[in-house]
Order: sequence, then structure tokens, then C-alpha cells
Amino acid sequence: MNLHEEWMRLALRLAETGRGQTAPNPMVGAVVVKEGRLLGFGAHLRAGTPHAEVHALNMAGPEAKGATLYVTLEPCNHYGRTPPCTERIIVEGVRRVVVGMADPEPLVSGKGIERLRQAGIEVITGVLEDEARKLNEAYVHHRLHGRPFVTMKTAATLDGKIATRTGDSRWVTGEEARRYVHRLRREHDAVMVAIGTVLADRPRLTVRLPEGGRNPLRVVVDSRLRIPLDTPVTDVSEAPTWVFCTEQGDRDKERRLRERGVEVIVAGEGPRVDLRAVFDILGKRGILSVLAEGGSELNASLLEGRWVQKAVAFIAPKWVGGCDSPSAVGGVGAEKMADSIALRDVSVERFGEDVCITGYPVYPEDRGSETCSLES
Amino acid sequence: MNLHEEWMRLALRLAETGRGQTAPNPMVGAVVVKEGRLLGFGAHLRAGTPHAEVHALNMAGPEAKGATLYVTLEPCNHYGRTPPCTERIIVEGVRRVVVGMADPEPLVSGKGIERLRQAGIEVITGVLEDEARKLNEAYVHHRLHGRPFVTMKTAATLDGKIATRTGDSRWVTGEEARRYVHRLRREHDAVMVAIGTVLADRPRLTVRLPEGGRNPLRVVVDSRLRIPLDTPVTDVSEAPTWVFCTEQGDRDKERRLRERGVEVIVAGEGPRVDLRAVFDILGKRGILSVLAEGGSELNASLLEGRWVQKAVAFIAPKWVGGCDSPSAVGGVGAEKMADSIALRDVSVERFGEDVCITGYPVYPEDRGSETCSLES
Repeated sequence: MNLHEEWMRLALRLAETGRGQTAPNPMVGAVVVKEGRLLGFGAHLRAGTPHAEVHALNMAGPEAKGATLYVTLEPCNHYGRTPPCTERIIVEGVRRVVVGMADPEPLVSGKGIERLRQAGIEVITGVLEDEARKLNEAYVHHRLHGRPFVTMKTAATLDGKIATRTGDSRWVTGEEARRYVHRLRREHDAVMVAIGTVLADRPRLTVRLPEGGRNPLRVVVDSRLRIPLDTPVTDVSEAPTWVFCTEQGDRDKERRLRERGVEVIVAGEGPRVDLRAVFDILGKRGILSVLAEGGSELNASLLEGRWVQKAVAFIAPKWVGGCDSPSAVGGVGAEKMADSIALRDVSVERFGEDVCITGYPVYPEDRGSETCSLES
Repeated sequence: MNLHEEWMRLALRLAETGRGQTAPNPMVGAVVVKEGRLLGFGAHLRAGTPHAEVHALNMAGPEAKGATLYVTLEPCNHYGRTPPCTERIIVEGVRRVVVGMADPEPLVSGKGIERLRQAGIEVITGVLEDEARKLNEAYVHHRLHGRPFVTMKTAATLDGKIATRTGDSRWVTGEEARRYVHRLRREHDAVMVAIGTVLADRPRLTVRLPEGGRNPLRVVVDSRLRIPLDTPVTDVSEAPTWVFCTEQGDRDKERRLRERGVEVIVAGEGPRVDLRAVFDILGKRGILSVLAEGGSELNASLLEGRWVQKAVAFIAPKWVGGCDSPSAVGGVGAEKMADSIALRDVSVERFGEDVCITGYPVYPEDRGSETCSLES
């Protein structure tokens, strides 16, 4: 098994190179090996272009006959924008296929593996499955729930403040942490803020890195369409912007935003934007992953609705103080400490002086408590 | 120099064994070495008992003649509760003394070293001086300023909350972090809370560890003597309790507290306790180190007055949320993010799922900014 894991690890590393650029497709890596020799490898890099298996088989050429193919995700068995990978694998005479994880989509899961076995190919499944699932955690979530995987990013002081009482927030964290946030933007299909952040900080929400990188879609939650026409995110020359409002949004403002190229989408009657509708629409449009860079109130709404799948919480080693300075999460809050939303699988990293705590929220009812005050 | 550092490191490790039990004296370690052989070692373990050098020389016996003595702090040259160590070193015929750091007390600093040199002993100073200063950071601060070294401990969630909106705070952090707090209590001469914490949590503020440990003095800041007579900290059978109030404190309550053995000390006219007076009194009474385990308001007062020398900030990977749940630091707070109080020499440790960030506050004026909004 160790040998399989070694080649699968290479396939996973190759898959990772496509992060941030494959949506709505998953990241996939593939490796072709025969008698301990690497014959070919590939990764899926963009929707509509060949899948990882095809690149790897192309590279291997006729030598693929009798070889083992390692692939991080079950090969597809249907005609999409490209022909089914299963047929190509069969045609090439591959002897064995080692799969990281089955396709997460319930309707097709296992179909590719079945087709390969019918053709007489040995299939081994579940090699480094946990790693394969983690690699595509956003894709898996999207296929299971039809909505994007939401990562909530916060940057707060030791006392949990994201700004001072006057609203000053430049900067909570240092340069290294802020650069990492730009990398996170590049790796997500969309970034999300609420109107409060747009008004207070006038962010661009683009990727500004020395090495460059694709800008994500910018999503603004703005119930009453208070967004100014001259704020940076309404300039769609850098990246598209979708503003979600309610039926209470000003129709004239909507028209003028559309003239600027901003897409305006009504999500609910109001007074507040219906986040379920927002995520349903984003999911339907092929957005797999959202980086929420909200303020206190968006964060509270996201947690109250249990929309957050992952947390990236930067803590800057400083104190702001003040009963009136905004905290990372506003809203009503938990009634009992035991009702707080804890993270599992916590990891801790340093970025310069700042600390970054990453984990996956466990919502109170998932822990088996009887009531959840956040829902009340 | 490497050889000297190696022996000095042993002396520092020995000194460390006395942590929490030497006040008002410093921790000191000593090692006697001749021709690469360890002849004796010792540490100062309690005020009124022999100094580290004496223990080490006792252990070495007549072999100390011609040896090198390593000592983490300049040997004393005056009669206190024990005779001067310098004389004992001279009498034993020690050839060379290697000193970690000079005595921090301005009036006597260098006098011990001078006396040894006058007696013809070679003296090398400043070996692992930074480590020696850090070991006795509380003692050094006390000798320079006459007031205790204050370590502010906080335990907050990712959104900076120390309790829920209903005041529930059990528990923010997990068992490992809480056990470490008990170790911190054992290592400090006093723990400090304000009346709000006494009323909300009814803490005992004692050391409850499987391995035992001395209880610190308990200091309560309570302007109007609202402390109940039946709350755990008024039971002085476990540890002494000093309550600091103002002249506005109820004299009848004061009398009844004294009957229970609680010391009541007036610090200022009011309405709030004069923290400068509190720390002056604690310093005069030989309290070198205070662990402040306050709530939002005590923490804000301590930071506004710049009384905090060190921070131990636990972050529990969870969210409480809520605009009305208390944050780690209350008060007015900074006006600009650049006026926040940052930590230097930050270190990060994990305790179970929790993260502990330790550092030393740099107050805005020390960074050269023109104004400090926290002072306003």
C-alpha cells in the first residue's frame, strides 16, 4: 500500500497546482506508472480543457498499455465538454487504476469505477482518500449540497476587535498575513462582503500579489442597494461584481449599477437579503468556494445560518479595547458558553507576528446539545 | 565563551526550580567547577534561607579553593538576613566568578563584583545575560520601579469574548489551558481580580493541581466594598486576601471583612481604586509579581494605566458572538488601529485545542507616536 500512497501523493500534489482555476470542476491529478517508472502525469487546470487522466495518458503515449494509472478522483464516465475518461483509459490498455476518492455526486458516484471493472481493469479505491477529500472539500460540498463551500476569514486583535471605535481598521494584521489573504482570494471562486464593509473600507477585493493571480468574483450583500456608484468594487474592469439585494432595493440604482456592468440579483423580499437564496444562486452558477471577508454583522448572519464550512481566523497580537469597537462576530450571540461554535481539526500557523487559526465549525446541534440559542 | 555558557545554562536551570517561592528575593542558581568537573551546585529557594552560592560552596567543600563559581546574579555584598556572599566566596579561595547579570538595584549594582575584584578574584560578567534578565524579569522590574511586574492573563474566543451575553464563562478554554493557569498562579506572588469577577464567577483563585503548589496572595479591587462575606475568596484559610477599596467603601463591611481575616486597604478617595497606590503598596510589601485575571474593565484600566508588563492571552478556537457579550478588554479603547497596544517578542504555544500568545506590551508612546488615545 505504501507504494500506491507514494504515487498518489504525487498525483495529489499535481492536482493542487490547479487550485483556484478549475471551477466548476474539481482539482484532479493523475500519474501513469509501469514497473516503477513514471511514464506520464497531468492535472486538470481549467474547465473545458482535458482532464488530468488525458494529459497523463498523452504524455505516456503507447507505453500506457499495461501500466497503472493513479488518479485522485474517480474518472468520469459521461460526455461533458470532453469525452468520458473511462473510455480513453480502456482504449489505452491500462491494466490497473488506483483511485483516491469516488465521485462525490450521488447520481454518478461509482459509475466510472464500475465501467472500468466491466472492461476488465483492476481498480483499487480509497488510497489517501482523506487527503483527496480535503483537496476538493469545496467541490465535494458543492456536489452534495448544491451550494458553495464558505470559508469565513476574520482578522481580529487579542480582544477580538476588527476595527477601533471610530471604524479604523488599517491594519489589524501585518503584511505577511495580508499577503496570505490575497492568496486565499486567488484560490476562491468568489469573495463576499456586506455593504457595511464596502462603505467603511472601500475595498477592491482583488488579488494584488507580486506573482499575479486571477481575481475572484466579488459578491456584495446589500439589502437596500446602498452601494455607491463610485466605489472600487463597482469597477468591473478588474473582476465581475454581483450585488445581492432585496425587493426593497432602489430600482433606479439597480439600473445604474447594471449600466456599469455590475450584476444585481434580488434575493428575497427583505428587509434582509435571504442568504439561502444567495448561496443557492451562487451554487447553480458554478461557484464552488466563497471566501467571506465580512464585518461583525455578516459574520454573525453567516454563523447563525450555519453557512460557514471553514474558518480562517487571524489573531494580531495587540489590543484595541473599547466597549464600542466592533468584534469579529456581532449579532445576538450564544446564551451559554457551551453553545458557542467550536472549531474541529484546528491548525495554527504564524504569519510574521500574527497567528492564523484554521478549523471547521461544529454547530451546537451537531454536538448533540438540545437547543441552540443562536437559532433563536 | 561556549564553555562558560554551558555551565551558566545549568545555573539558570537550577535557579528556575525556585520559581514562585523566593519572593521578595530573586531566583538564583550557582555552580562550582574546577578543571571541567562539577563540584557543587545550588539555588536560592526561599527568602531567609541560604543563597545559591552558599549552597554550591557547601556542596563543593574545600575543593572550592581555586575553582570557578558560576552564578546567575551578582553575589550580594551586604548583610541581610544572611551574611554577604562575597565574603564567603573570598574565604573559600574561589579563583574566578562568572556572573550572569549585575544586581539590578541601582544603589548596589556592581558593588559585589567590585568587592570580589578587590580581593583579587577574576570576574567575568554578562554571560547569558539576556536569559538571566528574563528569568528574573519580575524581580528586575520590582527593583527598578518599586512596583510588581504585572502579567495580564486573558482567555477569549476567536471573537475576543470572555463570556456570553448572559455572563456565562464556563469554560472558555479547555482543561490543559486551565491547568496551565493554575501553574501560573503558583509562579506568581499574587493574583488580582476586580469585584465584577468575584460577583460573577465566585472564584477561589487558588492553585488546584495534582502536584500541589503554594497559593498566591489574592488581591481584589473593589472600590465600594461590594464583596460578599460568604464568597470563596473571603475564606482566608487557604490563602490570604487583600481587598483594595476607596474611601467610599462601607466601614461596617470593612470591619466584618477584617473579622474574617481579610485585609482591607484603602487606595484613594474614589470613585475608583487608585491602581498606582495599589501597586505601590504591593511593591512595598515585597510582592514582585502579579497575575491579573481580570474581566473587561480591570483589563482596560490596567492597559490604560500602562500597568501591564507581560501578556498571556489564551485564544479558544470558538465563536460566541453577540454585540453585548463582554470582550477581553473594555473601556474606551483606541481611536486608531495604529494606537493599539501591540506585543513584542511574541511566542505562540498550543494547550490542547487552545492557543496561547505571550508577549510584552509596547505602549503607543514607546513606539514614538505623538498621541495616545488610550490616555484620553
